[in-house]
Amino acid sequence: MDLGTVVGWVLIMVLLFGAMAIGVGIGPYIDIPSVMIVFGGTIGCLMVGFKMEQLKKLFTFMGVAVKPQQINLQETVKKIVEYSTKARRDGILALENDVNNEVNLFLKKGLSMAVDGNEPDAIRALLEIEMDQTSARHGANIKIFDQVGGFSGAMGMIGTLIGLVAMLLNMADPSAIGPAMAVALLTTLYGAMIGNILGGPVANILSIRNEDEILEKQVVLEGIMAIQSGDNPRTLESKLLSYLPPKDRKSQFE
Amino acid sequence: MDLGTVVGWVLIMVLLFGAMAIGVGIGPYIDIPSVMIVFGGTIGCLMVGFKMEQLKKLFTFMGVAVKPQQINLQETVKKIVEYSTKARRDGILALENDVNNEVNLFLKKGLSMAVDGNEPDAIRALLEIEMDQTSARHGANIKIFDQVGGFSGAMGMIGTLIGLVAMLLNMADPSAIGPAMAVALLTTLYGAMIGNILGGPVANILSIRNEDEILEKQVVLEGIMAIQSGDNPRTLESKLLSYLPPKDRKSQFE
Amino acid sequence: MDLGTVVGWVLIMVLLFGAMAIGVGIGPYIDIPSVMIVFGGTIGCLMVGFKMEQLKKLFTFMGVAVKPQQINLQETVKKIVEYSTKARRDGILALENDVNNEVNLFLKKGLSMAVDGNEPDAIRALLEIEMDQTSARHGANIKIFDQVGGFSGAMGMIGTLIGLVAMLLNMADPSAIGPAMAVALLTTLYGAMIGNILGGPVANILSIRNEDEILEKQVVLEGIMAIQSGDNPRTLESKLLSYLPPKDRKSQFE
Amino acid sequence: MDLGTVVGWVLIMVLLFGAMAIGVGIGPYIDIPSVMIVFGGTIGCLMVGFKMEQLKKLFTFMGVAVKPQQINLQETVKKIVEYSTKARRDGILALENDVNNEVNLFLKKGLSMAVDGNEPDAIRALLEIEMDQTSARHGANIKIFDQVGGFSGAMGMIGTLIGLVAMLLNMADPSAIGPAMAVALLTTLYGAMIGNILGGPVANILSIRNEDEILEKQVVLEGIMAIQSGDNPRTLESKLLSYLPPKDRKSQFE
Amino acid sequence: MDLGTVVGWVLIMVLLFGAMAIGVGIGPYIDIPSVMIVFGGTIGCLMVGFKMEQLKKLFTFMGVAVKPQQINLQETVKKIVEYSTKARRDGILALENDVNNEVNLFLKKGLSMAVDGNEPDAIRALLEIEMDQTSARHGANIKIFDQVGGFSGAMGMIGTLIGLVAMLLNMADPSAIGPAMAVALLTTLYGAMIGNILGGPVANILSIRNEDEILEKQVVLEGIMAIQSGDNPRTLESKLLSYLPPKDRKSQFE
Repeated sequence: MDLGTVVGWVLIMVLLFGAMAIGVGIGPYIDIPSVMIVFGGTIGCLMVGFKMEQLKKLFTFMGVAVKPQQINLQETVKKIVEYSTKARRDGILALENDVNNEVNLFLKKGLSMAVDGNEPDAIRALLEIEMDQTSARHGANIKIFDQVGGFSGAMGMIGTLIGLVAMLLNMADPSAIGPAMAVALLTTLYGAMIGNILGGPVANILSIRNEDEILEKQVVLEGIMAIQSGDNPRTLESKLLSYLPPKDRKSQFE
Repeated sequence: MDLGTVVGWVLIMVLLFGAMAIGVGIGPYIDIPSVMIVFGGTIGCLMVGFKMEQLKKLFTFMGVAVKPQQINLQETVKKIVEYSTKARRDGILALENDVNNEVNLFLKKGLSMAVDGNEPDAIRALLEIEMDQTSARHGANIKIFDQVGGFSGAMGMIGTLIGLVAMLLNMADPSAIGPAMAVALLTTLYGAMIGNILGGPVANILSIRNEDEILEKQVVLEGIMAIQSGDNPRTLESKLLSYLPPKDRKSQFE
Repeated sequence: MDLGTVVGWVLIMVLLFGAMAIGVGIGPYIDIPSVMIVFGGTIGCLMVGFKMEQLKKLFTFMGVAVKPQQINLQETVKKIVEYSTKARRDGILALENDVNNEVNLFLKKGLSMAVDGNEPDAIRALLEIEMDQTSARHGANIKIFDQVGGFSGAMGMIGTLIGLVAMLLNMADPSAIGPAMAVALLTTLYGAMIGNILGGPVANILSIRNEDEILEKQVVLEGIMAIQSGDNPRTLESKLLSYLPPKDRKSQFE
Repeated sequence: MDLGTVVGWVLIMVLLFGAMAIGVGIGPYIDIPSVMIVFGGTIGCLMVGFKMEQLKKLFTFMGVAVKPQQINLQETVKKIVEYSTKARRDGILALENDVNNEVNLFLKKGLSMAVDGNEPDAIRALLEIEMDQTSARHGANIKIFDQVGGFSGAMGMIGTLIGLVAMLLNMADPSAIGPAMAVALLTTLYGAMIGNILGGPVANILSIRNEDEILEKQVVLEGIMAIQSGDNPRTLESKLLSYLPPKDRKSQFE
Repeated sequence: MDLGTVVGWVLIMVLLFGAMAIGVGIGPYIDIPSVMIVFGGTIGCLMVGFKMEQLKKLFTFMGVAVKPQQINLQETVKKIVEYSTKARRDGILALENDVNNEVNLFLKKGLSMAVDGNEPDAIRALLEIEMDQTSARHGANIKIFDQVGGFSGAMGMIGTLIGLVAMLLNMADPSAIGPAMAVALLTTLYGAMIGNILGGPVANILSIRNEDEILEKQVVLEGIMAIQSGDNPRTLESKLLSYLPPKDRKSQFE
């Protein structure tokens, strides 16, 4: 579990609610109709703009942001090089057991195709489709969080305009102007908070995690192609380690 | 019918009109000249910026957002694999009857070309043209909704400026300032509502539906190419299932 | 002539001037120095940012928006298929007369190269250069209208700031503040009107017309290649009709 | 020298200073601390964001905007076709003298490589590297002007906020509020002027000039390849003229 | 060390603090709660939006902006051409000593692969992976600084809205309104300063440095390929010098 995301949210919340508390208290910042306009309106926009099946998985996606899939590229390279060594020594069929126990589903699928004797081109084509489609599906989910900021900001602005119009029509009592305008501004505040705490940063971290996953799949794909064509494991390792930052490159042959 | 879009619109409308109603009532938020500037002005901008034949189909496009073309990628894969099995067993001419009854027009066209003995390259070229052109036409329609937000926002701002100037020239009676400014703000409110309820989210859902359709066409194209070259139906199924999310991949050979 | 563009402009103008008229009258909205800052300043920015030879043709481009080149893709396909039929029956030299009478210059050029016995690769290379360069020149022109919005908006804002500073330095007479601010806002109003009536929508329609023209050239290019290599006219028609929306596809062989 | 750029700047300046002069005079619009914040701050941002060697050439780039490299594509095509005719008649070595006198350095380099008997692929590779790198260097310079707008706008806003805070803390004397706010707005005004007069339009014209230069290099590259492979000069001319707008295409063989 | 970055920051700071000092003094511009909201909130957003391992290296990245890796493309070309001359004269194995002493790690890796007798395709593939992955990692780091501006601007706006609401609820004492609003504006000021001094310009210079590094790697890659295939050193030099701006091209053969 990546504490960064949770700690980041807690930090922001403590700071913002603290700032409210030391001013006029948190109470005046909570206005149920304003909450409904911004949260409800944003949800309404998401329902119009996305498919229900995407929205149903919204919390799953946020879970990915908080508890990312564990990707250890060094381990993946190490495992692939071991498979490569074994396949070169004992033939590719010797990997049959490893395939059955492999937990990385993408690696498992590719290796099992190789063990089953599929053509290299067919394996590559199938794995690339899977890689591209995974990335496309992730991209569609990330777009939800990208759009949340736009939708919530717009709803906040609409709410403030509705409140301003009401205030402007009731200016007989000057002492009521301040509080009325304060309430009108709350929707803009909520909109900015949703967009910049739940929207933008989550879209960003999900996009980073997607890139990590695609990079791992790329490494796996290269590895399977090399195992099948019986490349030298040292050459393969050297190639796969190039995907890692220099400091993480540790050869198992040294 | 995808209820999400309609329910989303209803939800937003209930929230916004509710917020107006519990304040000063809905009445003050309705101003016919302001409605005309923003709605009329946005329509004017669309007439300048798009071809009449595109605009005439505006409601058709909105219908697509509300009642999407039924795409079931699992069913499509299943059907193609069945055709592939039949063609491999009995020859591609055995598909002649299926072609005539096929409801998916893209699949029908491609299959009928294959049955008629066209060259694989010719079939691929023609289907890719059709795929690209469909996507280009959809993209042009989606752009209308993308631009609605910009146009309506601009018209709202122009209307507010016109109103503000009028208000500033009539500040002799202080009690008239509030209501005059309230009316001036209405066009900005209308512009934001059109752009963010009818514009952005509709462009988004139409773009998602376009991607779904293109993905289905891609699957169909791959399938037809494989049927024609007599590929193994199991291999084909395995490849086509890679286009689906893992949980939807169900083989008919198991 | 596409009435849409003109009707759109008239509609917007009637609405905006109507809104002014029913308020304080059109008079107060006309301020010559403000007009000069925004119109003159925008022209100044265009002179800095574009080549004089481009700007000299500005009204020609606007004419394209109002009175578009007549493109009838169905007719083009029909004509190409007829040429193809003739060339297949009587040899490509039989097209010599048709070439001389052809009004579509791009088709004429390509066909005459084919009739003159040029290599297919040379014809394709030359036509693709012409197609790409046409699109690049159109794109450069469209960019003018794209930038008009940015330039006029900036000039409007600069004018308003100049006016606001003057107003803030003369606040001794409170009754003068309103009118002074009204005048200051006029440049912002003009800037928004130029950008959103003359800029954005015109850029949009020009870009649509460019895509239509490039699509037609693409169809012509495909047609000439097929005529030269003596393809079956039915196969060619089937391919070219794929560029059209399904409802416009009418075969001349049925 | 392209008068457009200079005339454009003069026009804008006359209009803006005129607008100031007929209001409260130019004096109140000049505030040295504000000038320093915006000009100095923008220069500071440029120093952080770009390499010193880039910034040192800033005025050279502005010179390019004002006095562009003279590119005459018609002349270039004419010259290349003449070289091509000569090379075909007398052999490529006959161009040795022309190479030495050629003023277009890109054409000179490519031709001299051809005369020296280099391989076509080597010539193409080298010229494409030079073309790409020229464009990349130009792009990096253009980016400076693109960013000037962002930097100066931000500095203007920061200056205004600093001024507003000072004004808000000194509201005891109401008559001082107007002038204080006027001064605060000056940085925003300066920022908008720098960004929209020196930034955006200059970036735009430099980008157009870069495209012109790259297009000329493309024509030269095509020409050299054709000269070396001994293509027919008429065919070559016909191809190169396709890079020009239709009205500029004049054949020397007619 | 590139003084530009540091001098730029110092210049901006002197100007902004100077502007504060000559107004109401620096004191009123410092408000600890406001500092905490904007700095802390921005850090919180970064923690949500990026991986902890990226953020831990934030100061390392800023160091790259201040003290860039010394890249001297002229020297690199010179060295490669010398290696090429040696390899052509004495065979590629003669470079073994040079490889061991080479300080450019990318050049060292590629040369040592060539000396060890790897296939050209394998060397190219591995070096391109390394080049692409380096650029991707740099891009991910640059994105942090890109996003800082958005995050800090949003936090500044949220802080100002919180302050404005508090102020609007306490308008009983008119003399308190000014100072309260001044404090509310401080978060917007901080947000703009962070985004435009620490965010944007740093992202820009890091992106320029990345391009410089990738360009050098490109030159090295071309060089190694040519050394291995035994190309003429003069031809190689001529090609590599094309990557440099014309004024920096100095041949060692003249």
